[in-house]
Amino acid sequence: MSDVLSQLLEALGPDVVSTGDAIPARYRHDWSGLAPVLPLALLRPRNTEEVSKALAICNATGTPVTPQGGLTGISGGAHPDAAAVSLSLDRMNRIEGVDPEMATLTVEAGVILQAAQAAAAEAGLMLGYDLGARGSCTVGGTIATNAGGNQVIRYGMAREHILGLEVVLADGTVVNAMNRMIKNNAGLDTKQLFIGSEGLLGVVTRAVLRLQPRPPFTATAFCGCPDLPAGLRLLTAARKALGPALTSFEVMWPSFYHFMSDGTHQRRILAEEHGIYVIVEASAFTETAAREMLETCLGAAMEEGDVADAVLAASGKDERALWAVRESVAEYPNLMGPINAFDIGIPLERMAEAVAALESGLKAKFPDAITLSYGHIGDSNLHLVVNVPSAGRQQPDKEIKGFVYGMTRDLAGTISAEHGLGLIKRAYLGYSRSPEEIALMHQVKAALDPNNILNPTKAFA
Amino acid sequence: MSDVLSQLLEALGPDVVSTGDAIPARYRHDWSGLAPVLPLALLRPRNTEEVSKALAICNATGTPVTPQGGLTGISGGAHPDAAAVSLSLDRMNRIEGVDPEMATLTVEAGVILQAAQAAAAEAGLMLGYDLGARGSCTVGGTIATNAGGNQVIRYGMAREHILGLEVVLADGTVVNAMNRMIKNNAGLDTKQLFIGSEGLLGVVTRAVLRLQPRPPFTATAFCGCPDLPAGLRLLTAARKALGPALTSFEVMWPSFYHFMSDGTHQRRILAEEHGIYVIVEASAFTETAAREMLETCLGAAMEEGDVADAVLAASGKDERALWAVRESVAEYPNLMGPINAFDIGIPLERMAEAVAALESGLKAKFPDAITLSYGHIGDSNLHLVVNVPSAGRQQPDKEIKGFVYGMTRDLAGTISAEHGLGLIKRAYLGYSRSPEEIALMHQVKAALDPNNILNPTKAFA
Repeated sequence: MSDVLSQLLEALGPDVVSTGDAIPARYRHDWSGLAPVLPLALLRPRNTEEVSKALAICNATGTPVTPQGGLTGISGGAHPDAAAVSLSLDRMNRIEGVDPEMATLTVEAGVILQAAQAAAAEAGLMLGYDLGARGSCTVGGTIATNAGGNQVIRYGMAREHILGLEVVLADGTVVNAMNRMIKNNAGLDTKQLFIGSEGLLGVVTRAVLRLQPRPPFTATAFCGCPDLPAGLRLLTAARKALGPALTSFEVMWPSFYHFMSDGTHQRRILAEEHGIYVIVEASAFTETAAREMLETCLGAAMEEGDVADAVLAASGKDERALWAVRESVAEYPNLMGPINAFDIGIPLERMAEAVAALESGLKAKFPDAITLSYGHIGDSNLHLVVNVPSAGRQQPDKEIKGFVYGMTRDLAGTISAEHGLGLIKRAYLGYSRSPEEIALMHQVKAALDPNNILNPTKAFA
Repeated sequence: MSDVLSQLLEALGPDVVSTGDAIPARYRHDWSGLAPVLPLALLRPRNTEEVSKALAICNATGTPVTPQGGLTGISGGAHPDAAAVSLSLDRMNRIEGVDPEMATLTVEAGVILQAAQAAAAEAGLMLGYDLGARGSCTVGGTIATNAGGNQVIRYGMAREHILGLEVVLADGTVVNAMNRMIKNNAGLDTKQLFIGSEGLLGVVTRAVLRLQPRPPFTATAFCGCPDLPAGLRLLTAARKALGPALTSFEVMWPSFYHFMSDGTHQRRILAEEHGIYVIVEASAFTETAAREMLETCLGAAMEEGDVADAVLAASGKDERALWAVRESVAEYPNLMGPINAFDIGIPLERMAEAVAALESGLKAKFPDAITLSYGHIGDSNLHLVVNVPSAGRQQPDKEIKGFVYGMTRDLAGTISAEHGLGLIKRAYLGYSRSPEEIALMHQVKAALDPNNILNPTKAFA
């Protein structure tokens, strides 16, 4: 047994440290689709002190460490590495408490997002971000990737909901930055360093989250617009008319909407075909406000010709029906087999051009390509899903990625709106960040992790 | 002439570099009350390239630099230093433009906050933070101090409104991080390093700011509550009932309200005296929503006994009247002469205890002390103003500060809710941050400014 493993075993015991066949299959991969890997060892510490001991040993022996949350990442940031020790936070899943006056929630990093949301709801409040992976992802993972989800246009990314953190540095130092106050400008706000750092700068062990009141009333409309510019005028109008009641603004191009509604055998909501489809969701604190504000806003947009047709949900059941096609993305494997899925950002003034160029460019390269476009357009966030049926199981991943990320670079977009870089997007970092920004990332990494043990093959390392 | 001055003059010319008597009086002090200081030189660059040249020369010669915005800071972060070159951004005051679709505003750092707000308003939007110093402070200064102001409970601090930055590092490297998208997780979000860094890590030269829709309708109530716990129950209820319509929640203790209403000869709003006074402001996007929601919320609080009496403004003029005493703080010099003013944060569960202990503790030390307490309680933010009349011009600053910051430490609060540390609060950093947090600040400082030229006598340096 290697020196590092015997040190870890001695310090933490066999209950925390496992190796080889004793490492369950679920710890050998994440949701990125990368092939399973057996790590050097799996550590499942029960508390901050054990995380600290583990990192101190790894740092002293120069052993790489892969911090892990719920393993739901799709960029491979938490994917195991054969040369690294995996450090899973999944046992540190204690909800420490809600403070209703301060509107805060304190948790260990391994708490499942849905459990944190439930704790907030029990106190009559809510956590302002939510993702599809809520039942499996951990709060720590959402912090490490600065996750966002569907309502970022209203509530912002995870960063805006984090008041305090406890972090263990590469050398085992425990940094207590468990601030609970909204305003605290006593020196540098060091916790910001770790948000979105993909486990390269430290391991988040605890967090203080800011909670929100939940608007009890929602209204949802499904609109057909002549084209994206009309949809963007609707966005600008909806922002001004609805203010913080505008909680979602989702755009689907016909490529996505027609393919997915046909594929999942769902009746299309509107009788005619349109240039783009938009779901607008309003959430408010009075029963009439959400619906009346949305109706007024849509009425004005119809008069302007920016909305050609629209359906307003009359009930909660209706609302789910309007979202059904948008939320059918779990059907991709059944409908297409292997895909390349992109979560990129494009400045809005180039979004129409981007979608046209991406879809036509991919079809020029791969004539039978299926390209589906949709996204959180209020956040400049575009989803693109690509499958080349004739390529079967061997999709031309590299060519597809190179083309899409290259186009993203040329349009001054970001290769990662969400999900970070991990293993899969790390080669493209220079497409979205300036050399000086990347140099800064390296300076900070070198300062905080001089032995380069934390996720040294991932993201901006 | 010293070597550094001749190099600066040669590189930038006499229009940018001035020394000695040629430095206007207004550049010799900020609003901290510290005695005026003549800096080694004053640099007023016209563009980023000149900032870069200036810093490269100062870095190579090991010359300290004091970055300056509108000089409205009250902690002394931009106060000149006799051994340092002052670098004022005040000529870099170009508004580059508003993008209504993206809801962003791009400015040079020297733009006056009020001018940025006016540019946003012209596009039918608003910048989500606002301070009393709006007519003099610069956008760059608000970024360097992570300013907030009156509506933080709704809109958050400056950090939440900054999408992109251009920053010049100590060695003159220009970092272009002028991101415009809400979601961008391609590697570390390096701009976060510079927000609230008080000029110690780099000089912000340009910024992309996120804009908000402005709620057109407001309703304001002035309430008398039996005590702070009742006021905090009102806060919790108002958060849940009003949601994002709750834009201000200001508490005034009798110490402040009675002294200031008497001193400024204003009639008290309510007939009786109360344990605390609260101003609740609601802002909404429909005419009735703001007022009805506020009325309903206050009605319920009166039934619970948490509000004893309340007045709801019937007009905009009425609203100003309800705020008048709260906004009379410019009268301090007339009413008290020299003061010690604190802007601290206290966790809410200890707020009542804090105010009682601070006021009684100061009066025990200085029997004639005037102590005025009020604050943005929704942000855990307490203002305390202290004057000892018998001490005249020679206020016992050190004793007062030591007592207040010591009590803040003991109550797990922050010595700086806003305004940073500068020169005045730097000695107390350890009262509000853990040794590990402070060590991290030093590591980042050493990595980004290895020659320690940027504000080396301020904040966390």
